[in-house]
Amino acid sequence: MTNYDDKYLKRGASASKSEVHSAIKNTDKGLFPGAFCKIIEDKLGNDPAYCNIMHADGAGTKSSLAYIYYKETGDISVFRGIAQDSLIMNVDDIISVGAVSNMLFSNTIGRNKHIIPGEVIREIIDGYEEVISMLNDNGIDIHSCGGETADVGDLVKTIIVDSTITARMKRSDVIDCSGIKPGDVIVGLASYGKANYEKQYNSGMGSNGLTSARHDVFTKIYYEKYPESYADNTATEYVYCGKYNLTDSFVHGGLTVGQAVLSPTRTYAPVLKKIFEEIGRERIHGIIHNSGGGQVKCRGFGKGIHYVKDSIIEVPPLFELIRDSGRNSYAEMFQVFNMGCRMEIVLPERYAEEVLTISGFFNVDAKVIGYIEKNPVSGTQNKVTITAPDGNKTEY
Amino acid sequence: MTNYDDKYLKRGASASKSEVHSAIKNTDKGLFPGAFCKIIEDKLGNDPAYCNIMHADGAGTKSSLAYIYYKETGDISVFRGIAQDSLIMNVDDIISVGAVSNMLFSNTIGRNKHIIPGEVIREIIDGYEEVISMLNDNGIDIHSCGGETADVGDLVKTIIVDSTITARMKRSDVIDCSGIKPGDVIVGLASYGKANYEKQYNSGMGSNGLTSARHDVFTKIYYEKYPESYADNTATEYVYCGKYNLTDSFVHGGLTVGQAVLSPTRTYAPVLKKIFEEIGRERIHGIIHNSGGGQVKCRGFGKGIHYVKDSIIEVPPLFELIRDSGRNSYAEMFQVFNMGCRMEIVLPERYAEEVLTISGFFNVDAKVIGYIEKNPVSGTQNKVTITAPDGNKTEY
Repeated sequence: MTNYDDKYLKRGASASKSEVHSAIKNTDKGLFPGAFCKIIEDKLGNDPAYCNIMHADGAGTKSSLAYIYYKETGDISVFRGIAQDSLIMNVDDIISVGAVSNMLFSNTIGRNKHIIPGEVIREIIDGYEEVISMLNDNGIDIHSCGGETADVGDLVKTIIVDSTITARMKRSDVIDCSGIKPGDVIVGLASYGKANYEKQYNSGMGSNGLTSARHDVFTKIYYEKYPESYADNTATEYVYCGKYNLTDSFVHGGLTVGQAVLSPTRTYAPVLKKIFEEIGRERIHGIIHNSGGGQVKCRGFGKGIHYVKDSIIEVPPLFELIRDSGRNSYAEMFQVFNMGCRMEIVLPERYAEEVLTISGFFNVDAKVIGYIEKNPVSGTQNKVTITAPDGNKTEY
Repeated sequence: MTNYDDKYLKRGASASKSEVHSAIKNTDKGLFPGAFCKIIEDKLGNDPAYCNIMHADGAGTKSSLAYIYYKETGDISVFRGIAQDSLIMNVDDIISVGAVSNMLFSNTIGRNKHIIPGEVIREIIDGYEEVISMLNDNGIDIHSCGGETADVGDLVKTIIVDSTITARMKRSDVIDCSGIKPGDVIVGLASYGKANYEKQYNSGMGSNGLTSARHDVFTKIYYEKYPESYADNTATEYVYCGKYNLTDSFVHGGLTVGQAVLSPTRTYAPVLKKIFEEIGRERIHGIIHNSGGGQVKCRGFGKGIHYVKDSIIEVPPLFELIRDSGRNSYAEMFQVFNMGCRMEIVLPERYAEEVLTISGFFNVDAKVIGYIEKNPVSGTQNKVTITAPDGNKTEY
């Protein structure tokens, strides 16, 4: 166990979710066992040419940070970002298998009514509507079905915001990572900057690693002040051990450090939809959304594959700040955070240039960050080698 | 504000969810504004003859009770019931508009990994599979898509278990409460006893009013012992104010009091499916699932309707125990709990007998509990009058 795994566990979270994977290991893998999301027969329409996906995820403990930011500054708008986080964690998973239309969305929000007023719920609901409008404007056909807000103060310390998406699509449109093969290149899309469909600078933060980032970055001041923002069972030395106040300047994008860590999860849906239209789904061998597991997530896809990332996208300021504040190694950070690259497209080298052009059109930085080779060690297991900014290579 | 509303608020919950309703009041009401669930166009299949429903709900704070019961007794199987609660709260909502097939299900589970081990997650996942098998065996076509389990100890004190269902159905199959009219009768289906598709006696508890029931029924012993089972902000006098230990005998069904309050939410899906087949959906004017809002829930459906319940199903022992332990009035109890009747079918009197026969076939008690008349006071508002077991009538 690394120092990082240990910190994670002591904070009541986990980087690997091995227990959860063990609990579900016997469940059916669906129609496309190699795909990024589980895909099942068309139970909704009974058409053999179609398939269904139902997918769930949430904003995680980012909502706890939104809460303390709101309490410190009075800025309730940070909860709009939480809605975006919760929704996009699903949209960007589901678009990784090629779905861009016929999608429904619903949410489950649980709050402690003692401390979370109705205005916060309104802000979250408005935030959902705003992101859905933006997606619709970019040709992504997703429809809101509302959801359930439950007052469960005996369960939830502040507020939890989860979302679920259902999609129905043609089987022939599915992008299945089983197609990833030696010789392909990996094109990485930056998670930071300001895409032309975003309103302000995005730090690159997604909705993973927030338990870690929050406690590594922010100061002990919040330990005494907001006990409702962390687990009772976490030992004091693991709670808010960083050196920043929420309102310290982050410099980049005119944000505070709090706003930078709260930067709403960027969606790549507009970019990917354009890529599907211009290049064609059939030319894409796999798309990997670097959510839980960070840049090592790809290891779960393909067979006997070695992902070699020898030319990664420059690590943005926020992840350097988290690394520095938490005294974490690059090798650990790559297993938790997207480190500036939350979406990877694996395809033959000859189509890479067009991906870069399309990304550029949306003002989303992109580059060829590596390539695929056969895993020399095993016929079925995969491995990942990442060259960090300090030149050190780590094999996972 | 009644004494009951006040207790609810002081426990960080609410009976009326007025704030939540206010936050969503401007959202679109869908294709059938009078239906029990929101129904939208067939976004999944683009067929004008079809429609879609996506619906979310959860086990609420019943999981907090399962946690302390598990800690006290070592009986981990109570978490299977939590999966049933979370799923059936959705199934029985969605079947109230007539959906019995082409359904997908997914869940979102959030846990504090410090205190909820992987075995609990396995038990919940197995519980879901077990209920889905039972439903499938009874002709309900619902398919599990898995879900997301997140380690969010900084948000969730113990464990929260939510579920979402998506259904696609013919518009002509929709049961819309707008059809409820004067002269109809209300047939109530009992929430307690032992249906022939249940394995043991069911106390009648659903998954509503659990914050109230838990604190009103169980003793102060658990206040000191399990602070993780209730909101930090709740004043001591509102926490575990009852007279029962979890393992005290409930007498009925050989259950303990803890098991009785944890009794998994009964599904009426097998009964309703049979009713649809034998009587026909077109003869049913409305179905109301008495979830949040208890037996007063019906007030939200129909126009200018007076629901007169003058002959309710006998209140089962569990709700009498809760009433007695919490020193609550019947008038208050009917607004929170199903009080022994979690499903109401409104239809012309001539079909009532057949509903009773079909229910009897499943060993689910049923009776004509009342009738519909025009609300003499208002042309569009509805009201409900319930005659309690003590003979007192209350108008809501």
